[in-house]
Amino acid sequence: MKPLIHDDFMLQSDAAKELYHGHAKDQPIIDYHCHLPPQQIADDYQFSDIAEMWLGGDHYKWRALRSNGVSERLCTGDASPREKFDAWVATVPYTLRNPLYHWSHLELARYFDLDCTIEPANADRIWEHCNQRLPELGVQKILEKFQIAAVCTTDDPADPLDIHEKIKASGIKTKVYPTFRPDKALAIDDAAAFRAWCEKLESVSGVSIHSFEDLLAALEKRHEDFHAIGGRLSDHGLQSAWGSPTTFEEAKQVFDAVWNGKEFTPEDKAKYCSYLMLEFGRWDAKRNWTKQMHLGALRNNSSRMLRNLGPDTGFDSIADDNQASALSAYLDALDSTNELPKTVLYNLNPADNYVFATMIGNFQDGSVAGKMQFGSGWWFLDQDEAMRWQMNALSQLGLLRRFVGMLTDSRSFLSFPRHEYFRRVLCDLLGSDIERGLLPADMPLNGAMVEEICFKNAREFFGLELDPKYS
Amino acid sequence: MKPLIHDDFMLQSDAAKELYHGHAKDQPIIDYHCHLPPQQIADDYQFSDIAEMWLGGDHYKWRALRSNGVSERLCTGDASPREKFDAWVATVPYTLRNPLYHWSHLELARYFDLDCTIEPANADRIWEHCNQRLPELGVQKILEKFQIAAVCTTDDPADPLDIHEKIKASGIKTKVYPTFRPDKALAIDDAAAFRAWCEKLESVSGVSIHSFEDLLAALEKRHEDFHAIGGRLSDHGLQSAWGSPTTFEEAKQVFDAVWNGKEFTPEDKAKYCSYLMLEFGRWDAKRNWTKQMHLGALRNNSSRMLRNLGPDTGFDSIADDNQASALSAYLDALDSTNELPKTVLYNLNPADNYVFATMIGNFQDGSVAGKMQFGSGWWFLDQDEAMRWQMNALSQLGLLRRFVGMLTDSRSFLSFPRHEYFRRVLCDLLGSDIERGLLPADMPLNGAMVEEICFKNAREFFGLELDPKYS
Amino acid sequence: MKPLIHDDFMLQSDAAKELYHGHAKDQPIIDYHCHLPPQQIADDYQFSDIAEMWLGGDHYKWRALRSNGVSERLCTGDASPREKFDAWVATVPYTLRNPLYHWSHLELARYFDLDCTIEPANADRIWEHCNQRLPELGVQKILEKFQIAAVCTTDDPADPLDIHEKIKASGIKTKVYPTFRPDKALAIDDAAAFRAWCEKLESVSGVSIHSFEDLLAALEKRHEDFHAIGGRLSDHGLQSAWGSPTTFEEAKQVFDAVWNGKEFTPEDKAKYCSYLMLEFGRWDAKRNWTKQMHLGALRNNSSRMLRNLGPDTGFDSIADDNQASALSAYLDALDSTNELPKTVLYNLNPADNYVFATMIGNFQDGSVAGKMQFGSGWWFLDQDEAMRWQMNALSQLGLLRRFVGMLTDSRSFLSFPRHEYFRRVLCDLLGSDIERGLLPADMPLNGAMVEEICFKNAREFFGLELDPKYS
Repeated sequence: MKPLIHDDFMLQSDAAKELYHGHAKDQPIIDYHCHLPPQQIADDYQFSDIAEMWLGGDHYKWRALRSNGVSERLCTGDASPREKFDAWVATVPYTLRNPLYHWSHLELARYFDLDCTIEPANADRIWEHCNQRLPELGVQKILEKFQIAAVCTTDDPADPLDIHEKIKASGIKTKVYPTFRPDKALAIDDAAAFRAWCEKLESVSGVSIHSFEDLLAALEKRHEDFHAIGGRLSDHGLQSAWGSPTTFEEAKQVFDAVWNGKEFTPEDKAKYCSYLMLEFGRWDAKRNWTKQMHLGALRNNSSRMLRNLGPDTGFDSIADDNQASALSAYLDALDSTNELPKTVLYNLNPADNYVFATMIGNFQDGSVAGKMQFGSGWWFLDQDEAMRWQMNALSQLGLLRRFVGMLTDSRSFLSFPRHEYFRRVLCDLLGSDIERGLLPADMPLNGAMVEEICFKNAREFFGLELDPKYS
Repeated sequence: MKPLIHDDFMLQSDAAKELYHGHAKDQPIIDYHCHLPPQQIADDYQFSDIAEMWLGGDHYKWRALRSNGVSERLCTGDASPREKFDAWVATVPYTLRNPLYHWSHLELARYFDLDCTIEPANADRIWEHCNQRLPELGVQKILEKFQIAAVCTTDDPADPLDIHEKIKASGIKTKVYPTFRPDKALAIDDAAAFRAWCEKLESVSGVSIHSFEDLLAALEKRHEDFHAIGGRLSDHGLQSAWGSPTTFEEAKQVFDAVWNGKEFTPEDKAKYCSYLMLEFGRWDAKRNWTKQMHLGALRNNSSRMLRNLGPDTGFDSIADDNQASALSAYLDALDSTNELPKTVLYNLNPADNYVFATMIGNFQDGSVAGKMQFGSGWWFLDQDEAMRWQMNALSQLGLLRRFVGMLTDSRSFLSFPRHEYFRRVLCDLLGSDIERGLLPADMPLNGAMVEEICFKNAREFFGLELDPKYS
Repeated sequence: MKPLIHDDFMLQSDAAKELYHGHAKDQPIIDYHCHLPPQQIADDYQFSDIAEMWLGGDHYKWRALRSNGVSERLCTGDASPREKFDAWVATVPYTLRNPLYHWSHLELARYFDLDCTIEPANADRIWEHCNQRLPELGVQKILEKFQIAAVCTTDDPADPLDIHEKIKASGIKTKVYPTFRPDKALAIDDAAAFRAWCEKLESVSGVSIHSFEDLLAALEKRHEDFHAIGGRLSDHGLQSAWGSPTTFEEAKQVFDAVWNGKEFTPEDKAKYCSYLMLEFGRWDAKRNWTKQMHLGALRNNSSRMLRNLGPDTGFDSIADDNQASALSAYLDALDSTNELPKTVLYNLNPADNYVFATMIGNFQDGSVAGKMQFGSGWWFLDQDEAMRWQMNALSQLGLLRRFVGMLTDSRSFLSFPRHEYFRRVLCDLLGSDIERGLLPADMPLNGAMVEEICFKNAREFFGLELDPKYS
């Protein structure tokens, strides 16, 4: 039986093969948005066994396990590493057609050089083989092996940057930069938690917070700090955009209400959040950063499991809020004063792909090629059909060739093959068009586009400083 | 000219053919949701002519006729059977690319062994051939011919179950079970109709209804009665889910208002309906039933035709309400007290496929494999492209291999070939993936998945008692 | 290297080629909805250079230029024609996979017989070749060359019809008819602009406007005038339908408020607009016209660019409002009094395709084949994948064979090859189905369907008077 993973996996045409092997495969990676823990990079962390490395923190896999009738004990509970590993190996044959089937096999192939069907009959072999190889797979070795030119982690403005300093000092060729993600500045529903967070922010920024003005000053101080260490991106996780008309005075009043434990309405919150989002946008524009907005997740659907396990454990799904009007209003408010930064809009509901792919066109102003980006398939959408949809939408409605390409958005060091997965899909998509005569049979031209989307556009667009090896 | 319907119809690859002929074709059928009239099964009904059998009650075909400029007289009016038959035969050549073109030819092929293009030139031949064969096609013979292991009809709790008793006593190998569909318990807008329905319910349940408590007691009595005769499914037809926070006291107040002819607000109705939906869910969980929710239909759009012909006559379409938040709230309310039953969510708007396919993942709790199901393409969606979309969404975001597969949802005994249609689409989808190397070339594994989706998963999942021939 | 544009461009199967060359290619064109300026037709306008002809007024191309980082000066600014031309030629290689890449090459091939890759190296050659050919390409010659049987322009009821009279008198074989598009009658937010428009309407209609009754009389007078000159279509551009229950008295009160400079609420506006839309529908029904509704655009997103350049300059995108309920209510209100005209519903958000394709089915009444039409892919959707989606939705849920087919919706005389583009997509779609056995291998039948969709259905459906050459 032909192995699932082979050189031409997913590549259905000769043109696709030529593009992938000649133009995509060897490009370095700029993983410009992920949730990797900087501490593990700083520590050059070593995993204790394949179960920890493969399953730890991976809520995609937990979700599949639960769907397969596997108890929580074997997902996030107190079962032994081998028990959890076995549960996963037994579940993989039930994931046929799910990206996890491909990813899991790719992970064994690319990290462990193991070509082996994942099924209970092979469990011992996989367990032993992978655990033997673990010593070669410290976190920094992984970054080198996959040619990761840059990693942008996701950081709270209230987080200290000393870990990033430590990584910088370590001299690894992969540049690791923090991303400014001030979601907690908007989280005013729980006033106590908000105040506690303000204290943390006060401490790292050195700015005392007693007023709305202080909060803004502390946040912008952190924006400067992130900039000083090389950060060039911000990010926001929002169910939908905050686009209410608002003034400084209105936002300040809401802050005062929160600060003094008074009540406020949903409209008040909208004004406050909208104002902060405008401020964030202005800072991004001022420092020539790129703003990212992750829109459309419906989070923490199971209140029972939120109580038991906390957030980000596999109980989130896709929202279907109307997105267009508020998003347009927000972008327009920045654009109308020439303060709209470079922006990447990520969408979680594929039904909105065309809304997003045309929304970016509204604010392309000719200042930077691809200034407004429709971000790569995100979370539930970073799989075969949804990545094609995103690229098709962008192609039909914008300029695919200006696309900054893939990121992992992952919490796991085992996710880098998702770049390979993306590149195979990209090359297959283009290859098929070439064979059908929809793209010109000009392979240097098509190859240039592949290289740009895989690496070169991101290198130009974000302006991150890279090691000479990659720049 | 090659006939449209042949052994390998729809199967574009060798792998697809192998899967269909080796694993799908001969599986029995569990038609776990349909609108077949139990009376006709009990009576072993014989159709008087092909027009009655083919066109009677089939609002899909009426809709196509009207779209083709055919007057109502020839759809639902007083035209003769032969006139209606001729109108349909003349319309079929205008249904190219509509599933009716395939279905109509499949119906002639599978029920009447007639391989003949449907067009006016062949009208006489079809009319005569089919009418001659009719005596062999009593309703019970049809159920046997198509290997129908079980049929779950759709029943109002106020319906008597004596017809189901009669079917049970008849000893046919097809098990016929009622499904608990209490839509009328929520239909409080017309207070008079609601009271009349309560009286019917009172009579079949033996519980006097004078209060909200009585209503609940009567309904649960019927839930027990349905259980006693073998029913294991409930069903709800809703434009969108009822997910308002609510208490017994609030719901009771709304009931009292309705009962006493007083006014109530839309918010009141939402509280009442949400409360009842919670109760229904608890009963399903208690008896280990499966709850079905059919969401997203916009019904009775033409008020003129509703007046003339009544509901379910071909004037319904797809709604575009936002579904996610209320549905999540409803499922979470049950889940938070560990009273969420096995559930099948059916979606009528394909733009929401990804919302639904991720929604089920929020509530998979590891207790039963595939506890939460994203239901098969329903109504307007049980055709080639939409069935593929549903299976692709489920594949990418959940576990296709745990899918309980197809049901007809039909009012016609001529609809069983839709299972064949579904199976051909399924095998074609998988076969294509095999040939493209996206599924492993392990035919026993892929074949097992096909058998599970076609029959075995439904057999395990629903827990319906089957005749030994099928269990 | 094989040229991009060749005889079988986009046609992937032998059946597709047979359909296109045998049945589609030579059909005349009824461009039943566009925004061509009637003045230029009346004047038999000659373009001064290829830049004006190719780029002037084409906001699709401006949008691509801006996305490619080209400054506004080279899009709509004061750069020279050659500079703008060069900017476009340099941008085309960045439009790979965008329909502009295909369209631009098709435009050179079909208008100028130029087979040449558009890229900077060929800029001089293209510039010289095309400018030399310009004298052969006066507007009336273009209409003849592309066999345009009819063009329906888009006209305000307050526009005079003298230009249309002049065209009629010129004796060209292409019939040019005005379309009644009374959007400004609904634009009451700016009371001063509304009054100014009423004055214009007063002047062309000869009806003095002092009251709501007068406004209706003046508008209907124009409807009659449009009818007298041969117009048989109306059109409305709406973000979503106006479907509020309303009475004459209510609408009149809102008119009075506007007329007297008083305030009114959004609900008032909805009542006023809903009433007018009902009146418009009744007039269409009375004169056996076809109503068009263009739904789902989110316009003028960049307020900065609206100030600088005005509307329709490339800053619009796709809205995601819920469409179904209001649209159903509006159509039902007309249908309930038997005053629903033939209707074409155009949808800009492909997520709503299934909503629209089933909505038309609600109101098919058997009076005219295909009375309710789901319009062809519009604006952002008149490209390869979205035209396929629209035709697939219509096929699966309605009768493709009754489809009235393509229109350009364009402001440019260079857009007629979009009919060729559509026809190639249509033939490819059907050809693929034929080769996969999903359509019968009956080429006369399939060919008849192609001819009907390309031309014959529109000829029958709209009832426009054509030159004998085309009728």
